[in-house]
Amino acid sequence: MSKKVVTLGEIMMRLSTPDFKRFVQSDTFDVTYGGGEANVAAALCNYGLNGTFVSKVPDTAIGQAAINHLRRYGVDTKFVARGGNRLGIYFLETGASMRASQVVYDRADASISDVDAAEFDWDAIFEGADWFHTTGITPALSDKAAALTLAALKAAKERGITTSIDLNYRKKLWSKEKARKTMTELCQYVDVCIGNEEDADTSLGFTSKGTDVTKGELNLDGFKDVCKQMKEKFNFKYIASTLRESHSASDNGWSALVYDGTSFHHTKQYEVRIVDRVGSGDSFASGFIYGLVTGKSMADAAEFGVAASALKHTIPGDLNHATLSDVEGLVGGDGSGRVQR
Amino acid sequence: MSKKVVTLGEIMMRLSTPDFKRFVQSDTFDVTYGGGEANVAAALCNYGLNGTFVSKVPDTAIGQAAINHLRRYGVDTKFVARGGNRLGIYFLETGASMRASQVVYDRADASISDVDAAEFDWDAIFEGADWFHTTGITPALSDKAAALTLAALKAAKERGITTSIDLNYRKKLWSKEKARKTMTELCQYVDVCIGNEEDADTSLGFTSKGTDVTKGELNLDGFKDVCKQMKEKFNFKYIASTLRESHSASDNGWSALVYDGTSFHHTKQYEVRIVDRVGSGDSFASGFIYGLVTGKSMADAAEFGVAASALKHTIPGDLNHATLSDVEGLVGGDGSGRVQR
Amino acid sequence: MSKKVVTLGEIMMRLSTPDFKRFVQSDTFDVTYGGGEANVAAALCNYGLNGTFVSKVPDTAIGQAAINHLRRYGVDTKFVARGGNRLGIYFLETGASMRASQVVYDRADASISDVDAAEFDWDAIFEGADWFHTTGITPALSDKAAALTLAALKAAKERGITTSIDLNYRKKLWSKEKARKTMTELCQYVDVCIGNEEDADTSLGFTSKGTDVTKGELNLDGFKDVCKQMKEKFNFKYIASTLRESHSASDNGWSALVYDGTSFHHTKQYEVRIVDRVGSGDSFASGFIYGLVTGKSMADAAEFGVAASALKHTIPGDLNHATLSDVEGLVGGDGSGRVQR
Amino acid sequence: MSKKVVTLGEIMMRLSTPDFKRFVQSDTFDVTYGGGEANVAAALCNYGLNGTFVSKVPDTAIGQAAINHLRRYGVDTKFVARGGNRLGIYFLETGASMRASQVVYDRADASISDVDAAEFDWDAIFEGADWFHTTGITPALSDKAAALTLAALKAAKERGITTSIDLNYRKKLWSKEKARKTMTELCQYVDVCIGNEEDADTSLGFTSKGTDVTKGELNLDGFKDVCKQMKEKFNFKYIASTLRESHSASDNGWSALVYDGTSFHHTKQYEVRIVDRVGSGDSFASGFIYGLVTGKSMADAAEFGVAASALKHTIPGDLNHATLSDVEGLVGGDGSGRVQR
Amino acid sequence: MSKKVVTLGEIMMRLSTPDFKRFVQSDTFDVTYGGGEANVAAALCNYGLNGTFVSKVPDTAIGQAAINHLRRYGVDTKFVARGGNRLGIYFLETGASMRASQVVYDRADASISDVDAAEFDWDAIFEGADWFHTTGITPALSDKAAALTLAALKAAKERGITTSIDLNYRKKLWSKEKARKTMTELCQYVDVCIGNEEDADTSLGFTSKGTDVTKGELNLDGFKDVCKQMKEKFNFKYIASTLRESHSASDNGWSALVYDGTSFHHTKQYEVRIVDRVGSGDSFASGFIYGLVTGKSMADAAEFGVAASALKHTIPGDLNHATLSDVEGLVGGDGSGRVQR
Amino acid sequence: MSKKVVTLGEIMMRLSTPDFKRFVQSDTFDVTYGGGEANVAAALCNYGLNGTFVSKVPDTAIGQAAINHLRRYGVDTKFVARGGNRLGIYFLETGASMRASQVVYDRADASISDVDAAEFDWDAIFEGADWFHTTGITPALSDKAAALTLAALKAAKERGITTSIDLNYRKKLWSKEKARKTMTELCQYVDVCIGNEEDADTSLGFTSKGTDVTKGELNLDGFKDVCKQMKEKFNFKYIASTLRESHSASDNGWSALVYDGTSFHHTKQYEVRIVDRVGSGDSFASGFIYGLVTGKSMADAAEFGVAASALKHTIPGDLNHATLSDVEGLVGGDGSGRVQR
Repeated sequence: MSKKVVTLGEIMMRLSTPDFKRFVQSDTFDVTYGGGEANVAAALCNYGLNGTFVSKVPDTAIGQAAINHLRRYGVDTKFVARGGNRLGIYFLETGASMRASQVVYDRADASISDVDAAEFDWDAIFEGADWFHTTGITPALSDKAAALTLAALKAAKERGITTSIDLNYRKKLWSKEKARKTMTELCQYVDVCIGNEEDADTSLGFTSKGTDVTKGELNLDGFKDVCKQMKEKFNFKYIASTLRESHSASDNGWSALVYDGTSFHHTKQYEVRIVDRVGSGDSFASGFIYGLVTGKSMADAAEFGVAASALKHTIPGDLNHATLSDVEGLVGGDGSGRVQR
Repeated sequence: MSKKVVTLGEIMMRLSTPDFKRFVQSDTFDVTYGGGEANVAAALCNYGLNGTFVSKVPDTAIGQAAINHLRRYGVDTKFVARGGNRLGIYFLETGASMRASQVVYDRADASISDVDAAEFDWDAIFEGADWFHTTGITPALSDKAAALTLAALKAAKERGITTSIDLNYRKKLWSKEKARKTMTELCQYVDVCIGNEEDADTSLGFTSKGTDVTKGELNLDGFKDVCKQMKEKFNFKYIASTLRESHSASDNGWSALVYDGTSFHHTKQYEVRIVDRVGSGDSFASGFIYGLVTGKSMADAAEFGVAASALKHTIPGDLNHATLSDVEGLVGGDGSGRVQR
Repeated sequence: MSKKVVTLGEIMMRLSTPDFKRFVQSDTFDVTYGGGEANVAAALCNYGLNGTFVSKVPDTAIGQAAINHLRRYGVDTKFVARGGNRLGIYFLETGASMRASQVVYDRADASISDVDAAEFDWDAIFEGADWFHTTGITPALSDKAAALTLAALKAAKERGITTSIDLNYRKKLWSKEKARKTMTELCQYVDVCIGNEEDADTSLGFTSKGTDVTKGELNLDGFKDVCKQMKEKFNFKYIASTLRESHSASDNGWSALVYDGTSFHHTKQYEVRIVDRVGSGDSFASGFIYGLVTGKSMADAAEFGVAASALKHTIPGDLNHATLSDVEGLVGGDGSGRVQR
Repeated sequence: MSKKVVTLGEIMMRLSTPDFKRFVQSDTFDVTYGGGEANVAAALCNYGLNGTFVSKVPDTAIGQAAINHLRRYGVDTKFVARGGNRLGIYFLETGASMRASQVVYDRADASISDVDAAEFDWDAIFEGADWFHTTGITPALSDKAAALTLAALKAAKERGITTSIDLNYRKKLWSKEKARKTMTELCQYVDVCIGNEEDADTSLGFTSKGTDVTKGELNLDGFKDVCKQMKEKFNFKYIASTLRESHSASDNGWSALVYDGTSFHHTKQYEVRIVDRVGSGDSFASGFIYGLVTGKSMADAAEFGVAASALKHTIPGDLNHATLSDVEGLVGGDGSGRVQR
Repeated sequence: MSKKVVTLGEIMMRLSTPDFKRFVQSDTFDVTYGGGEANVAAALCNYGLNGTFVSKVPDTAIGQAAINHLRRYGVDTKFVARGGNRLGIYFLETGASMRASQVVYDRADASISDVDAAEFDWDAIFEGADWFHTTGITPALSDKAAALTLAALKAAKERGITTSIDLNYRKKLWSKEKARKTMTELCQYVDVCIGNEEDADTSLGFTSKGTDVTKGELNLDGFKDVCKQMKEKFNFKYIASTLRESHSASDNGWSALVYDGTSFHHTKQYEVRIVDRVGSGDSFASGFIYGLVTGKSMADAAEFGVAASALKHTIPGDLNHATLSDVEGLVGGDGSGRVQR
Repeated sequence: MSKKVVTLGEIMMRLSTPDFKRFVQSDTFDVTYGGGEANVAAALCNYGLNGTFVSKVPDTAIGQAAINHLRRYGVDTKFVARGGNRLGIYFLETGASMRASQVVYDRADASISDVDAAEFDWDAIFEGADWFHTTGITPALSDKAAALTLAALKAAKERGITTSIDLNYRKKLWSKEKARKTMTELCQYVDVCIGNEEDADTSLGFTSKGTDVTKGELNLDGFKDVCKQMKEKFNFKYIASTLRESHSASDNGWSALVYDGTSFHHTKQYEVRIVDRVGSGDSFASGFIYGLVTGKSMADAAEFGVAASALKHTIPGDLNHATLSDVEGLVGGDGSGRVQR
């Protein structure tokens, strides 16, 4: 029977301009739905697992449309609560070359930020579950959402379920101070921590030297030092980070570094021509989780994760629609891009 | 020199599904921008007047896109303030036959609802102005917006400018009780009141008998009685109402009734095949204002207004893009729809 | 707990030209997926029931896309088998006025026509089920599909589940002779029979006088006589038929006649302005089943069904996306099409 | 062997706004190509005849695109000359209800207006031809184009080929005085004259009483009188006119009146729901020509023509994509619009 | 007079997802039509030759649409037979970066696979023809199609017409064993053989060492050895192969190797940024044929062919819409991509 | 108060094919409006200046649409005259890789070419103006347009306004001889001259050695010599040129060289992945003008200009929608393309 992974977080409507148009030019938007944890649930369904998503959306046709989007890709949405004021929205303008993609968030007062842990039946949610995943975005949404995240992590741990978190610091949602306080508490219940060097600093207060994220240079040594500090403090089973070399909005280098407290593994680096890089971190997380929950070694899980997310860069939308065989093919070395007939 | 009409209100992003799709089916949205008072300003520009719109939008590319939409159609937007949290949004699903169009509002916490009258330079705004127009939607948005509306009406009256209001009761924004209290105060500064029988009740507490808006039957006598009550209480110079016979979402009868305290004029009734009926009330208001501000008689102004709004029903979007010659042609009797080469 | 309705049949890819274009003009197709029984399952999910669809699709991304379409709208697709050669396709050109819509089928050799009843676990499929529905299209696809239909009907009856069939004769799939032989056998296991007068003749050999389907005139007396014959022979619990008055490809009259062996009920007749009439029969069937399975009277179930299918005519695609409240609103009498804000 | 019909005229690029948008709203145009005589040639190909189009287009990719459009629908374009300055353009905004469709012409200096009859090999063009058709638009384009038209008509008559002209007066191209002078000369070489009462006046100077084209009322008696005058002066073999009752831009009544010098035949009148009425006159002309050139009686040819053009009203673009069987089906009486499966 | 090239094969409908969408994401398809031999005929028309295509399509509007697509680009389709069951379809998902394009074929039972050589009038088809071309796809479709291919090759050779074949092995259509048997027989009637090293093995059984097509490395020496074996066995006048270095789905190196039994010519290699690489082999074949049939040397013909196909990679659809002057410009060395005004 | 820059020239309709389609393939056009001087005015509005555009458009909805496009982006269009025959059009096919973009002009007889300087109120136009800009395209349109350009330059100089011209030689509009004569006269009234080496030759007759524009190599020494000659003859305050290294239609190197009579500054060179390179020269001009008119040094102004135009290459349409902060960010060194959240 397939593994069950539960994720908790926000599902937003994404409104993006087509054809590299800027916001002020566009008279249509492409509409999809996504969010860090929803993206993870959907990707895991693609790989044949049971991805269950826990959230709250408004009881309107707009909320229903978000649920339908996830159902389309196989996500179990029966634990999504209905109510609250609105669905969070984000506007996306896809960049090219030296013009960066731009995101305008309109997520305040979303239903998920006005939520009570008692709205959810944790026994039912975690029945048969093998893994629980969330991100640092959810607790940043509101105090209620933070309390919900804590409750879910505790409920998972109580049931012996492996837990993971993607730090994902969002500076528009909370201060570093508040983030560090909250995330430090949450991380006590976390087995697998995903987050890059910047997140480690902003969310948990770990620092190293020499990384300037606007330069696109990788400083692996500095980050390895941070990983060791994180391991020491939280005793995470695994720590993982994607590593992006942002040559431009069109071309990136992309790899991952993972650590099990003993050794580091730096994956193959892919040079990706970007179609849509939103959700690439989530696609790594889902691939890495897939690998671990199905019994791969840390290194193999990381290679699977980074190949999955390399493919994500070529697919429009937040969700990763790479299939298991797509990812396995790329892990196996066929990146030649020859037509598959 | 062309007449100047100032309007005050909210400008929202409108996200509509194409091709009669329901919300849950649609993977794209058509994007326009509108709102009762913005629609009036834009229509007046089409007729050659100076339409000046006063509002507040967020200081983002999304706010800029709303402004650009109005500028495109000639509206003077230099008095639109920047700031606040977000642009209000409404989602529109266009109906057909017995399936009604549906609107889902997502307008809470819009920039215009967090506004202070002191953010605006009324001397500059009303310099050379001939008319001021707003609607009952603006004061319903928030107490601050209600205070702004009052300040604007007073400022206009102090400068001897004719004022008009479209009652436009929105039950999702406020209760009848609150509406009546606020609108009764505002109407002291109003010269021309536009609003149907239902609005007269919900917004101002005037009642007559026998109108069931879900039936689509017109009860002119009842409404005439209401008009007389309104005249008596507020001494409006003109009272006007559009009269819709809603045969279905595809076909409507459409006319207007106007009253100057002495006599009533019921305009020609148009049978319209509907392309997009959003903004039809605003298109009547702008046509009626156009007529009055340029010196037409009440009856001629009303005929102009109702012809303008008949045409609006055939044009997608909130704004009425009928030109002066289009409206005059229809008033003149050519509704044959023969190709204009 | 919500009622469970199982349907069995084909799911096809539908490729339709946009904007009233003819096939030879169109350089794009709109893509949806549908089929009589899939349409019924999806509509029932809209009304809050558990709609479970049994079928077979190819094990390709195209087959997956069909499944995803149904999942999007809540259908339980876990019993859809994978394999066989291809997904059936139909091309649709939507007509207007005196130009009829045209359908070109390309459904030969679809996966569902190469199927064995043993591929399905009937115990699991029918666990907790309240109703089973199929149509006369499925047995027409191939001898294997006919055998599957028979097996499913028997399996349902063995488990005490109510069964229904929509006769739906398709002359391009089989001869009247073959249809009559097969359908007569199948109808032994059927409780509720849906089908118009023409179907009753072509599928089961019952005839009356005076109906010319190209004229759009209703001959209720003739059809009532047929219903009585059908009752006598098969002892159906209910017999139902939609009644279409086809004024043109743009406007139809639409009602239904139902019979319980004792009395007839002719529903309200709706005059519909058509957006997309494909699937209208299925939308009646699903509404009628909804009514009966949730305990409405035959007359109320029929009124629900015909209102649901009136709404379907206004919605693009094969599936009926009218919600429970949409249908109840129309049954309750509000067909005025006023904007729902 | 199929009949060959040669037509001579302009082929223009048509740029139309989608979805009932007005020009000022639209950021895309749908692109097709058409023109009175090209439309006739294309329709005849649909009915199985050889439609040969003679014209001149610029030697650019834009000119090529126009040719490709006609080739797509089977027109023989090998006699289209290349050269001159530009392809004529017209902009189309499709109206609805009381808003008329609007056409903005940008056709001055088109290649066809700078043309010399010597650029064409009339022997090759008319080899095997049975019919030659042109319209009053071509001679209106320029003196050179008028000379070309005259040369073509003479060349056709010299070879014993039946000739027809559609008067099609365009007031933006020439004055009534100039039109009358030129058309009177051309009509000496014409066997079949098509044109409504207004054209008969503006192009040839025949008048009757009581028709006001903006009213949409038919005055058959007046027009019959005009027909008799035309017969007397030019001895046309047949005179034909379409009769439009323009209820609105969405709904028209549509029939035709034909005359052979002895008796009149008024065809069945169709009530059409309009998708695109551009080219409807040409679709009648092509249907009428089809009937006559294939040996139908005048009345049958007219019924075929009016049915063909009724269908044209439901098809987007200038060209009539109704097939022979579509038209024959409608002539045979099936206008019920039932789905053709 | 322009040269006439006849091609024989299948024309398929191509349904492709827009904007790099995956199949499961897409609610629209772009529709074009193509196939190896149709693509060659169309490209030759672009260069001013007479391209005549022989095939069979169903007698439906879908079959007509395929024919219309080829007519649009100048192909003579009068020898395309009508009948059979269906038009073959292929679904295309365009890849990017390390995600390969994917093709799902749905071509079984296409009309061309149910064909008899007697349906075609070879005397008329080959009248005035200078060249006949087909591919290894056609005989793979069915035994009937293989017999047709043989009949056509024999008919061409009997009339002294130069013949060419593109080996194009399709593993989903037939086994290597069957391919080798059939192709070996067909190649007795072939003058010019096009096919890469892999095809030479799978279709004709010639092998060399060291080429791994998933690596994108070129092994010219191995292939030259294969060419010599092919020359020896079949005495082909020319052997040609394109050489692709597949860096990714977005960037390829592209050149060709040609051989006349005496010497080899390796063309310039182009580094192409890919828009659509489907049909690139056909675009080389058509360019090479163009060169040879118009009297260019083998080397010049190959340079023309590879330049033509480099341009094809930048053009959406199966057909190469590069013009003669486009190709000549690139052969002449201007690949700077400066705007042509 | 913000600086005011007046520009004079043509505004054209731009019709471009989507998705890399060639003209002959496309059934839709994307519609925008632009022209060298309009593009400059719009870009300056983006940077917060008052951009005022002087031109003439036809008094039709098409002319209005052009004006609306500029208004949308903030341009003051109140001095655009109405009248004349038509709006100029250009067709654009966007290239990729070695396939160059192609432009087909259809601009003859545009309203701006039939213009009289007396149609404009220069006092009002130049009231408060700081800068006047035009290009060598405007005088090339017609003798009247040349006279207008001269009149405008004189009027600006009389009022002490800084003037600039972009040489922009268009060989399809006039001969080198005529250009040199006219431009030499105009340049007497010019302070800032923008134009590459080729323009310096064709428009003004200055020559250097060794530049072959089809090679994409930069010959700075030769051009510097030309700059010195230009300085000597016209005593320009600044001379500026963009420098393009056209690797392909998809990738260009892009920088600028500026000269103040004393020293040269060669800006940073950007490697741009191209979305739409039309208007890139205008985007440099507007950025350079912005820098100078707001008091930046020549070098800083040039860096601003080249960064602005690097961004333009990534934005569809003629107008540069890069904002002030976008450009400043890139000048400041962040070209990493990381998502801006």
